Amino acid sequence: MSDHSEAAVAPVEAFEPPYYVAVFSAVRTEDQSGYGETNARMEDLVKDIPGFLGADHAQTPGGLSITVGYFRDADALTEWRSNAEHRAAQKRGRAEWYQNYTLHVAKVERSHAFKRA
Amino acid sequence: MSDHSEAAVAPVEAFEPPYYVAVFSAVRTEDQSGYGETNARMEDLVKDIPGFLGADHAQTPGGLSITVGYFRDADALTEWRSNAEHRAAQKRGRAEWYQNYTLHVAKVERSHAFKRA
Repeated sequence: MSDHSEAAVAPVEAFEPPYYVAVFSAVRTEDQSGYGETNARMEDLVKDIPGFLGADHAQTPGGLSITVGYFRDADALTEWRSNAEHRAAQKRGRAEWYQNYTLHVAKVERSHAFKRA
Repeated sequence: MSDHSEAAVAPVEAFEPPYYVAVFSAVRTEDQSGYGETNARMEDLVKDIPGFLGADHAQTPGGLSITVGYFRDADALTEWRSNAEHRAAQKRGRAEWYQNYTLHVAKVERSHAFKRA
């Protein structure tokens, strides 16, 4: 844990409600071949969705992986959910990369941020 | 990454909407003295809140830490938020343990779960 890596990482900001969060919590399988490049492609692709605000990600080694996507409105989420390349990646994820996962799509009513002075 | 640890971990289930998520995304400071026991105490305490459904947690070493708490309704969240011991822990967190954090409280409209056969 270097000073450099600590300085570089920060959560996405707390936006003015309402906006949407998509919480994806997963455990991966042992076979992760192809996951890295598909994930990188999805990270690029979602940035083209109008209303995509950002994403936070954390992964406990050997444990749970959580990704939280932030979207301005339900339309932005629908567009991302309907994207053909994204749907193909989801299908491959269920076939190969995920042991189990949950998805929770929710409308933010309250948000708060703290930053050390 | 042993077979044992992979088998033991799983995300909290996807409940029937509506319910609430509290997404807490944080970067910690270098001084974590006292954090472990306070966190364990909070994990115990929140289980006594009627309407608390569970929590997912992931932490990237040296990076972001995400905790997602699931609650049946807004009242359950209000009770947890008002808990005196929880408030004292939050105050100490801002003073000592957190570099920065965001909190997003949101009402779940749609949920989905997948489990490998």
